[in-house]
Amino acid sequence: MSYARQLLGTYPGAVIADTGVLAAAIDALSDCAQACTADADADLGEQNLAEMVRCIRLCLDCADVCTATIGVISRQADYDPGVTRPLLEACVAICKSCGDECERHAPHYEHCRVCEQACRRCEQACRELLGVLK
Amino acid sequence: MSYARQLLGTYPGAVIADTGVLAAAIDALSDCAQACTADADADLGEQNLAEMVRCIRLCLDCADVCTATIGVISRQADYDPGVTRPLLEACVAICKSCGDECERHAPHYEHCRVCEQACRRCEQACRELLGVLK
Amino acid sequence: MSYARQLLGTYPGAVIADTGVLAAAIDALSDCAQACTADADADLGEQNLAEMVRCIRLCLDCADVCTATIGVISRQADYDPGVTRPLLEACVAICKSCGDECERHAPHYEHCRVCEQACRRCEQACRELLGVLK
Amino acid sequence: MSYARQLLGTYPGAVIADTGVLAAAIDALSDCAQACTADADADLGEQNLAEMVRCIRLCLDCADVCTATIGVISRQADYDPGVTRPLLEACVAICKSCGDECERHAPHYEHCRVCEQACRRCEQACRELLGVLK
Repeated sequence: MSYARQLLGTYPGAVIADTGVLAAAIDALSDCAQACTADADADLGEQNLAEMVRCIRLCLDCADVCTATIGVISRQADYDPGVTRPLLEACVAICKSCGDECERHAPHYEHCRVCEQACRRCEQACRELLGVLK
Repeated sequence: MSYARQLLGTYPGAVIADTGVLAAAIDALSDCAQACTADADADLGEQNLAEMVRCIRLCLDCADVCTATIGVISRQADYDPGVTRPLLEACVAICKSCGDECERHAPHYEHCRVCEQACRRCEQACRELLGVLK
Repeated sequence: MSYARQLLGTYPGAVIADTGVLAAAIDALSDCAQACTADADADLGEQNLAEMVRCIRLCLDCADVCTATIGVISRQADYDPGVTRPLLEACVAICKSCGDECERHAPHYEHCRVCEQACRRCEQACRELLGVLK
Repeated sequence: MSYARQLLGTYPGAVIADTGVLAAAIDALSDCAQACTADADADLGEQNLAEMVRCIRLCLDCADVCTATIGVISRQADYDPGVTRPLLEACVAICKSCGDECERHAPHYEHCRVCEQACRRCEQACRELLGVLK
């Protein structure tokens, strides 16, 4: 059981959404931020750098947005849908873009294939959280 | 002249919005992230902690969202309005909420008055950037 | 298998340390950052807030240092021991302090018990990485 | 007067070092993180990408370490030299490396010249803070 799930189970108060969906989103965001940080660096090590520039930029954006989202959705009280909803929408959008770009490179680079999977899973987990948010 | 403005003036390509508006937003986001981080800690040092909890949480959210937004709007190429727009909307919303909460405490705590100003200025700068984004 | 481990296995070049030790550190840092962010918020929801202030501050410090360390140790090329070593030492120190403080609260608060475990594991993983770094 | 300086002047308790030196460090760290984020992206826009890879990586490391350091030195209470000292040492080291690499590119790229200045100023400000820390 992930730390996110354990911690949500011990929260002193109501949580903003179903614990399972919330924990899945936090775990997927954390994995995705980590994968994007590593993939951007792996891209910088490839020969055909000019073709990897877009992938590097999207990975950096994706890591930044995922990291902020972990913080905001980890704070359960004082939940404000006016902040959390657009932030999750930004997450879904960047995970989609970054996943699509990684998919283009996946046949050539295994690191992009792994990163694509992390982005797709995170996009899906954020969509599910958006669907059940109070 | 801030580093943001100097760097935008030397960018090797087109930028996503008027340089002045963009630099003002980056500077305001950076100031706001910094002020919110410091205000959350100052709040933790006050006697009537129970009344400061909401302010602390909003400051932490605000710092997280502002930090991610600096990263995304600093990357000029591969601009995606589907990511940048909701992210800036999340920023406007959290700066508004955090500024309002700080305003409540401003008569008692000078640090909340200073943080309120940083939030208000950041909210305004993000609104202006939203208005001119391509 | 974690994303960190999968990505390290596909890296286009030499990595800075044994892949298993490095992946374990990245995973532990990521878990610890997440647990500390959640525990700081759970602490803010407790009644005896004054006693939790030190725990909140250490958790925020720990999350910040762990997040930076993930970034730096995920970048394999241009490795500089003059940066990575003190950063890992800062990580070990804050994980130790935060783990000790969480341990004090663990008998009363399950969330502190979970966070203590994440801190201990991260401290250990960073020590092991320090021991094998080139 | 920067927000950092204003906030330190209103802190409810003792601060960890001379207010002027501390505020100068926070401001320099914030400028440096911002400049490095922007310079990494500007580098990605240049033609001779292969020569810019080291600069991009060092800028990303520098931004990560500076951002974490802002958080830790903004929290005045529960100051722990065992954490703050190595973190500032990591900051000094990465600002030096990143500044040196930017200096190599400064004759060709104005954005690297600007980033070099931000790194040099941050290195100096962190050294001064290390010198006066309690």
